[in-house]
Amino acid sequence: MAEQACIAKHLHHIAIAVKDIEDTVKFYQDTFGLGKIDIVEVPDQKVRAALAKIGGTELEFIQPTDPTTGVAQFIEKRGEGMHHICFEVDHLADTLKRLETKGTRLIDKTPRQGLAGTIAFIHPAATRGVLIELVDSHAKR
Amino acid sequence: MAEQACIAKHLHHIAIAVKDIEDTVKFYQDTFGLGKIDIVEVPDQKVRAALAKIGGTELEFIQPTDPTTGVAQFIEKRGEGMHHICFEVDHLADTLKRLETKGTRLIDKTPRQGLAGTIAFIHPAATRGVLIELVDSHAKR
Repeated sequence: MAEQACIAKHLHHIAIAVKDIEDTVKFYQDTFGLGKIDIVEVPDQKVRAALAKIGGTELEFIQPTDPTTGVAQFIEKRGEGMHHICFEVDHLADTLKRLETKGTRLIDKTPRQGLAGTIAFIHPAATRGVLIELVDSHAKR
Repeated sequence: MAEQACIAKHLHHIAIAVKDIEDTVKFYQDTFGLGKIDIVEVPDQKVRAALAKIGGTELEFIQPTDPTTGVAQFIEKRGEGMHHICFEVDHLADTLKRLETKGTRLIDKTPRQGLAGTIAFIHPAATRGVLIELVDSHAKR
């Protein structure tokens, strides 16, 4: 991989932490005409989630189902709002090694399984306050 | 326009409020291999700004140049991080009228001139904490 090859291929989604996902989905549907949006339970992440397509990317609404999770604490501290963004990458394990070599602070040093493929988070202290998820969606479960 | 026509055509950009735009741009270039990113002065918005393309959308970094601006106050209160997202729309004036009719709380009830076209902001109290900009980029200055 060339040193300056672009790692981030695409903005996969923006996640928005909310208190009431039914109410939120209804608002975004009514306001922006987004069509049908399914709400799914994601027990292993202790959230309820919904994806809404906007052009080539997605809004991901997440409602915590457990007050001890990071998403619940985010809402408690900062209120509802944008929680993280996610870039699509190729070869996630290699990408994480490359970032670690550069000294980038990571939350996940190795890929773990997410809903849309293997995922990892970069620490917001590294990225000027932005929690960034990387996903390799070729590695779907 | 049909009631359920999708207003948001595309995610135009995500804006990230930062304290030091040179340092931020260097970090994102080095970390994600984003290539050349120009920093521009935007005196009427009292920010310095830089756009970085990620697939079909853009990251917009904004550094306030005046401590009294909303962006400066955002950083003061919440730290650096995601400030707003922007959806591309057609017919912005009509869209704002439609949103107002629905009771959506708006910051701008009529379009004003922005960098990429005519723009308007929806109040984050309406959108579950997300400051949403709408842009009609066909209406460039």
